[in-house]
Parts: sequence; C-alpha cells; structure tokens
Amino acid sequence: MTYSIEIERSTAPKTKPQEDQLGFGKHFTDHMFVVDYETGKGWHAPRIVPYQGITLDPAAKIFHYGQSVFEGLKAYRAEDGRLLLFRPQDNFKRLNLSNERMHMPEIDADLAMAGLQELIRIDSGWIPSAPGTSLYIRPFVIATEPSLGVAPSAKYQFLIIMSPVGAYYAEGINPVKIYVESGYVRAVKGGVGTAKTAGNYASGLKAQEEAAKRGCAQVLWLDGVHRKYIEEVGSMNVFFYIDGKVVTPALSGSILDGITRRSVIALLKEWNIPVEERTISVDELFEAHERGALTEAFGSGTAAVISPIGALYSENGDIEIGGGKTGELAAKVYDTLTGIQYGRVADPFGWTYELQVAAVK
Amino acid sequence: MTYSIEIERSTAPKTKPQEDQLGFGKHFTDHMFVVDYETGKGWHAPRIVPYQGITLDPAAKIFHYGQSVFEGLKAYRAEDGRLLLFRPQDNFKRLNLSNERMHMPEIDADLAMAGLQELIRIDSGWIPSAPGTSLYIRPFVIATEPSLGVAPSAKYQFLIIMSPVGAYYAEGINPVKIYVESGYVRAVKGGVGTAKTAGNYASGLKAQEEAAKRGCAQVLWLDGVHRKYIEEVGSMNVFFYIDGKVVTPALSGSILDGITRRSVIALLKEWNIPVEERTISVDELFEAHERGALTEAFGSGTAAVISPIGALYSENGDIEIGGGKTGELAAKVYDTLTGIQYGRVADPFGWTYELQVAAVK
Repeated sequence: MTYSIEIERSTAPKTKPQEDQLGFGKHFTDHMFVVDYETGKGWHAPRIVPYQGITLDPAAKIFHYGQSVFEGLKAYRAEDGRLLLFRPQDNFKRLNLSNERMHMPEIDADLAMAGLQELIRIDSGWIPSAPGTSLYIRPFVIATEPSLGVAPSAKYQFLIIMSPVGAYYAEGINPVKIYVESGYVRAVKGGVGTAKTAGNYASGLKAQEEAAKRGCAQVLWLDGVHRKYIEEVGSMNVFFYIDGKVVTPALSGSILDGITRRSVIALLKEWNIPVEERTISVDELFEAHERGALTEAFGSGTAAVISPIGALYSENGDIEIGGGKTGELAAKVYDTLTGIQYGRVADPFGWTYELQVAAVK
Repeated sequence: MTYSIEIERSTAPKTKPQEDQLGFGKHFTDHMFVVDYETGKGWHAPRIVPYQGITLDPAAKIFHYGQSVFEGLKAYRAEDGRLLLFRPQDNFKRLNLSNERMHMPEIDADLAMAGLQELIRIDSGWIPSAPGTSLYIRPFVIATEPSLGVAPSAKYQFLIIMSPVGAYYAEGINPVKIYVESGYVRAVKGGVGTAKTAGNYASGLKAQEEAAKRGCAQVLWLDGVHRKYIEEVGSMNVFFYIDGKVVTPALSGSILDGITRRSVIALLKEWNIPVEERTISVDELFEAHERGALTEAFGSGTAAVISPIGALYSENGDIEIGGGKTGELAAKVYDTLTGIQYGRVADPFGWTYELQVAAVK
C-alpha cells in the first residue's frame, strides 16, 4: 500500500552540528513526520513539515493525564554508503503494544514505516558518518484533546523526530557502576512497566539521582513485590554471566521487552551459549559473585547497545564484576550487534533494514 | 511579599457557556497564569495572559519522559456573594510534595496563591452561581526542555487554568457501582502513587474501561504487593463504615493524601465517630458485609466531594451496600463539606479561604 504523505520542505535548513559534538538528543533534523488522530475519523493527514514547535491547548490531556507512548531506534550510515535501520518493524509493533496498554489507538505500522522512510529520505544528509555516530529516531504519540475529564483522549498526534547522535563510547566501551535500589520501585506487575510510556521515565529520576550521589551511573531496579528479584538497569534490560550461562530477567509483566534484549538472546543462542530467562534475585547474584561464578554483567538498550557493569553498589556491600573491566562476552555481543547495525558484519537474522534512499551526504 | 505579575488582558472575551451545560473541564476562562523556570534562574516572569495554546518543542521532556504534576481545587460563589476557596494552601503544599517526588523544582506557594487570586479576580465573572456549580482550578507544572536524554528537565512551566464546572450530582447524590480490580495495579510502595502526576492517571484508563464493561463507574484498586488490601477508588480516596467505625486505607506510600480525605477524617473526629486509618483487605470488607456490619462505603475527592458506593462487583461475587442507597453518614459528610465550601455552614476548621475580590457576576 502507498500512502499519500504531504511534504512541506523547510525553507531555512539548519546548520548541522560538528560530528564530534553531537551528544544525545540535543540537535534535531530539519523536518518531522506528523499524523493526527480523532475518534471517528481515525489517523489522518500524514505529513512531513519543517521541524517546529507543537501548539497544544493547555488542557491537552498529555499535560494532565499522561497518555503517551514512544519508541527509539537508529539509522546507521554504513561504510559502503548504505543507510540501515535495525529491526524497525519491531519498534512499531511494540509502539502498538504500548498504545494498547495506555488505551491509545493503534497506529498503522506500514504508514509509520512509510513516513519514517520519507522523513529519512528528506533528511538523509543528517545521518552522521563518524565512527559510532548515528541518527536517533524518536517516534511518539501524545494525547491532545483539551479536556480535564479523566478518560481516554479523543485526539492524538503521532510524530517522528530525528536527532544525530554521537558515539556512546567515544573513548571505548567502558563499564559503569550500578546502585542496587532498595527503596524506589520502577514498576509492578499489573502496572505499565511493559509499556514505553513517559511516566515510567519520570518516576525513575529520583532513584537515578540517589545512584549518582553514590557515584553510580544507573539504578538496578528490584521488583516491587518481593523487593529482591532483578528487573532492569536504568532504562536498559540486564544480563548476568554466571557459571557459563547467561541469565536475564524473564518478561514477567513489569519490564520492557527490549529489542536489543531480544537480539542479545538470539546471538547467544546462535553461539550456543545457554541463556536463561527467569527470575533472578540480587542474593543469587551476590552469592554467585562470592564463589567467583559471576564473570560478567551488562545492560542492553538502543542508546548504548551494550553497557558493561563493572560494579554493583548496595546497602549490603559492594561487589566488583569482572575486575571492573569489560568482559569478553559483552565485548563480543557489542561488536557483533554494532557490526550488524553498521553493516560491517553479516546479518543472518534479517534484522537489517536497508533504506531505499539515495545516500545524500 | 508582593509579586510583580504582568497582566495581558484578552481583547476577545469568550461567550460564557450556559450554567446548565457546563460539564466538567470542557470550557475554560479567558485567562491563564504562567510562570517559567530555568535551572540557574529559578522561577521567573509570572504573568497572566489570554488563555491560549502552549507551543513546545516536539522534544520537550513532557512528551517523552513525563515529568508533570498537577492539582485540582475549586472556587465557589457563596449565596451572600463571597468568593471562597477550600484549603488552597494545602493544594500548593501537596503540589510541592509531588514536585519533590518527580524531581521537579519547588514552587513558591505564595507566588502561586498570588497568581491564583489575581487570575480569579480577572476572570471572576466565570464563577458560576447555579446550585452545585463552581470554578474548577487546575494548577500544573510540565517539563519543557527540548532534550531526549533521560534526566530531569532544566526548564519547566507552571500554569493555572480554570474551568466553570456543572453540578456533579445534577439529579441528587447517587451511589455508584464499583469494580474490584484484580489484574491491573494503580501504584506500589516505592513508586509515584503518592504524587499527583500525569502517569498515574494514564495507567488507570484500561482498568476503568474494564470496569465500565461490567457496568461499574470506577475501579476499586488493590495493593500491588499482596493484591488484597484496598487502596483507592478510581481517583478518589475511599471510606467504609463498619461496626459503627469508619475505616480508610492508611497513607502507606502508594495512595494519594487527599485533601477531601483529610477533611472527611477531621469531620468524623469532630462528630466523635471513630476513624481508623489502616490496611483493610477486600476479604475483611466482604466478611463485614456478610454479617451485616458494612453499612456504608464512599469515595472522596475534589470533583465529587463524596461519591457513595452502592455495590461492589468482583470476581468472587457482588455485594450491595446500604441497600444501594446513599447512606446517612455519606449524606451528612457531603452536606457539611459542600456547606462549608459554599459558605452555607459555619467553618470551625479554618478551611475556607475568602478571596478579596470584588464579586463581579
């Protein structure tokens, strides 16, 4: 199916930032993709317009009752000039799972993909080419109906904005210290922890601050019921290499079904490394460390891909993992995943999505 | 302290809606109060401007990571012409508790009160006078910094908008059916259930829909850990009249510290009716009903003040409470609270706040 996407080109293209000063999510490309929704009318008026402010009534439900979902993915410029996405259909599938949980209307994933491709075509000059850089893509949906009744919004807006981002590990992949959070809870089964919705991120900021005070980069979230089973690390999924097996928390209804997580699991299986998706307590972790069986730990997510964990700080003491250095397995997963993403490594999984776009530089 | 609040008056006042067609949160007055915040600069530029759209960068953090807090209170037109608020300082105190939880900057409560009074002065003609009507006031704060890093926003906007609202019980106070929710969870200790933040409301919409499918008006939320202790009803606090005592869930870290809740407790104590703030299980409730000891149940909140519960529907059977009729106690609490709010009944508590505003009609 083809979609009629109206295009209004920017008459004042911005100056592109230096590729060594990109940072994350600070600069945005010249255009954005927008689609409106109204009950009874459905999604309509898909369009690409110059990147610009959104004007909403101050009573718009997004400001008061928080109906919102988002996704994050990246476009990569391969050395041979191809422009690649990584499992983009999975992002739009998950966007719709989030929509469902937040009582928001399903989006036509094909329309979203068509809009994304057109947007990248127009702004392809914004995809950086320095090693480790990429174009971060942020699709999101917000509730726009101006009404203070606590009820699902009758109006929404779906947007895609894009931001050229720097290398996450400009000075090489580096392990972080993580704080085992015993007070704050990210999500609980029956809540919205499985959805990529704004509230899940706001609720974690205080804990993140507490972790930072202890010199830690992120929080290791424990479950809200027993306060002992591991859930996520910051806004990443988490893996532990114990006794030659990789253990990661099961999708139990309170953690995000990460696309990088799925990719890590697939890679490990391909390499015949046993993977267990199950509950894992922080006690088991400390006990495994005690007997020298915990060799590696790492987070997985779109921004960092793999984030090795060099130490866990907790109320009951601190432990160092893998001598505080990036483990072999984490490095191999990182190299392979980023290799596939940048088109340097063969992709036997069909994860790579090549954009049919003239690769304007 | 006096604050310099700049005022820009609307040159195109809107037509006011008929007082019998107000509804809730659909119509808004001619002006709004706005204050900006920026790290390093603090809150600045308090102003009253014509009610208008807010323009935000599509990367504004409110759309992605949900930092937001709000309050709800009402202005009442007394029969003798006075304009009354109900415990407004408590709202701004709570707004700051919510701000703290969401890692957002504290607001000067005096500035907020000054802005609110000035706004009401300018828009006082919008306070309706038909019985049961009032002017609903919505102070809220949103994160506005355009940046996709998961971190507290460096910029915020505080706004107050106002909406004339109709009588909640246009046809007399009426009990509702409530569904005991066994799957979805509103909040858990360690999360943000105590804060008035947008995400708490979005996360409840699916459950509300499920309740509606069963002919129920709202959800009775159970705790996320044991799945048996009662928390709130919809977005209200909840009270049960059992064996001549009133029981309400304690403020255990996952429910809202309702200002109407506090007022109900104070009234009951004034009347020498025993009140217990403690955990109460849904089993205890059904057991009390079984032996005829559960005589009344009602919710409390700003919008409805008191909402009698006539029946509980659950997976384990349904019960009728008080013959499905509004109980004497609920009616007395409702009459007294609304009496104080509208200045018909003496206020021995000092809850009433009289606006020093010429009561323009």
